[in-house]
Amino acid sequence: MASKNLLLLAGDGIGPEAMAEVKKLISAMNDKLGSGFVTDEGLVGGCAYDAHGAAISDADIDKAMAADAVLFGAVGGPKWDAVPYEVRPEAGLLRLRKDMELFANLRPAICYPALAASSSLKQDVVEGLDILIVRELTGGVYFGEPKQIIDLGNGQKRGIDTQVYDTFEIERISGVAFELARTRKNHVTSMEKRNVMKSGVLWNEVVTQTHKARYADVKLDHMLADAGGMQLVRWPKQFDVIVTDNLFGDMLSDIAAMLTGSIGMLPSASLGAPDAKTKKRKALYEPVHGSAPDIAGKGIANPIAMIASFAMCLRYSFGMVAEADRLESAIAAVLDDGLRTKDILSEGMTEVGTTQMGDAIIAKF
Amino acid sequence: MASKNLLLLAGDGIGPEAMAEVKKLISAMNDKLGSGFVTDEGLVGGCAYDAHGAAISDADIDKAMAADAVLFGAVGGPKWDAVPYEVRPEAGLLRLRKDMELFANLRPAICYPALAASSSLKQDVVEGLDILIVRELTGGVYFGEPKQIIDLGNGQKRGIDTQVYDTFEIERISGVAFELARTRKNHVTSMEKRNVMKSGVLWNEVVTQTHKARYADVKLDHMLADAGGMQLVRWPKQFDVIVTDNLFGDMLSDIAAMLTGSIGMLPSASLGAPDAKTKKRKALYEPVHGSAPDIAGKGIANPIAMIASFAMCLRYSFGMVAEADRLESAIAAVLDDGLRTKDILSEGMTEVGTTQMGDAIIAKF
Ligand SMILES: CC(C)[C@H](C(=O)O)[C@@H](O)C(=O)O
Ligand SMILES: CC(C)[C@H](C(=O)O)[C@@H](O)C(=O)O
Repeated sequence: MASKNLLLLAGDGIGPEAMAEVKKLISAMNDKLGSGFVTDEGLVGGCAYDAHGAAISDADIDKAMAADAVLFGAVGGPKWDAVPYEVRPEAGLLRLRKDMELFANLRPAICYPALAASSSLKQDVVEGLDILIVRELTGGVYFGEPKQIIDLGNGQKRGIDTQVYDTFEIERISGVAFELARTRKNHVTSMEKRNVMKSGVLWNEVVTQTHKARYADVKLDHMLADAGGMQLVRWPKQFDVIVTDNLFGDMLSDIAAMLTGSIGMLPSASLGAPDAKTKKRKALYEPVHGSAPDIAGKGIANPIAMIASFAMCLRYSFGMVAEADRLESAIAAVLDDGLRTKDILSEGMTEVGTTQMGDAIIAKF
Repeated sequence: MASKNLLLLAGDGIGPEAMAEVKKLISAMNDKLGSGFVTDEGLVGGCAYDAHGAAISDADIDKAMAADAVLFGAVGGPKWDAVPYEVRPEAGLLRLRKDMELFANLRPAICYPALAASSSLKQDVVEGLDILIVRELTGGVYFGEPKQIIDLGNGQKRGIDTQVYDTFEIERISGVAFELARTRKNHVTSMEKRNVMKSGVLWNEVVTQTHKARYADVKLDHMLADAGGMQLVRWPKQFDVIVTDNLFGDMLSDIAAMLTGSIGMLPSASLGAPDAKTKKRKALYEPVHGSAPDIAGKGIANPIAMIASFAMCLRYSFGMVAEADRLESAIAAVLDDGLRTKDILSEGMTEVGTTQMGDAIIAKF
């Protein structure tokens, strides 16, 4: 049997509470289904800084590199707002993405029928929404050099970041988007700012070439990223798969998440290239939401995004498609039963805490 | 009497149709109120490229530099999709912004009561919305160098753009935001990605210092730009003035515009620094919408954004506050009467064309 080594990095804020529900689920799967998951844990973010002065230790990076998949909670909080830039909580996440070469970030924005009414958008605009944002995750302005603040004297400083993309990076991320589109509605929309950015010109060119050479059967559209943001708000159902760069992907996927009325529900997967021999991809799964320090420790956080991230893990890292489907159905069923954590509460529904929500999902699984 | 020289750059697509309505309005003001506007015209965008192979001629740049204000329509269209990057239609607009040093882009997102129902957002989320996005317009990734595509050989290219901000640029744009906030709800939200970008770290630092030194009476919040985009979609009324950089401003202002359900309605002003002697600011006014080539020439385009841009011009360039107020009221009155162009049509309303809409507004003015 193939190994199933999971590294759990719960992080800060509500991360540990949400992760606790996934741990229960994993135990249940091991006990009842003999799933054979082996888990290890590590520190990332503010808690890692407190423990050893870095947002993640080299030892935990080694564990992440060796694991079959990493489950990641959330990082950050006011406690670490003033720590030096290089060791800020986010640096742990960024280092994981870079060292593991997780270039493909998959962010589904799905509107659960039970929650369609709770979006700030009109119900008919978001009901049945199912789009997938494929965000490039290891390039662009996040990692380009130079990245620095220069003291110019006279009280003047200069802040510099570099947006840089190479052909191969655009090729591989668009390949992922086209492949995934084939399993969905066969439609990819690529977004950039080619009217202003040279990296956008190259992005557009390489996506077009990749399409022509290998994926001509998929419908491809190009949209300027600002217009794309507008269209997401106007009529999001026009999209199937959106492929875009690291920074635009950050903005656009957060907006897409908010459309669904339930950012506490949305999972993400970050994948590397398949290993030449084993064909396995390095992978990290994390909720789209942050560490929500204001509600941490109160037992009221919504664990669904974390549980749904584990469903993506089952699907993409372990090929456990039936189990992933069942877990996603269990989430939908619990929502249909009217159970709600505080963040998604609406009239006539039953408010539950983090643990109860986790238990209810496990019971339906 | 101070001079009132206007340069009209109608541009491409629906630009000329929308501008025609403003021309009628200017004539009416000159005839009936003796307003004394003197207008000149020039070419920008695709039509300028067709005429002399550049997106704007040096002669028209000189005219823009000399004018008291520039009214700008829209640029671009499929006809020019394949022209070289340096002479693409947008290059004309970008050169105007840079040469005129129009660093402050003011983009109000106002939800007209008559249109609240036509937003894709729920009515209570957008009704009464009145936010102002102050976007830095002459710096950042739009103009930073290096900006190029390098051929690396082996079929690999590298696209590079540079995000760069100096202290003085952040200081002056935040000054504009704080000043404007004082005339509104006295609340500024600054948005950047300081958790990823060094320019964001500097942005945050300089906005904070400027606030402390000169505008401590204004309420200041900081938000990460991705979270800011989400919050715009979730509950936009939490904002008053948003100040942000060129690229984030591009994305966020388009999203804010879409919230109002009426991108065809929204104006913008781009302002330079006050001249040391005359105190006059160079200024360009333009609709937030694009050139909409698909409906150009059909007489159905919505001229309201262009007319509202002229209202901003009256207000900011000529201190004609009463006239600006009256013009804005005329727009609201015509909407209250049920007149709608196709883009904002809803049941029970009266569909009108570009000319009729312009005439109706002039009649109410
Ligand atoms: C925490 C932060 C560094 C991160 C990002 O900007 O990528 C987050 O916003 C995300 O989208 O995963
Ligand atoms: C036309 C384009 C260059 C421009 C920009 O990106 O600034 C437009 O989108 C805008 O927002 O004014």
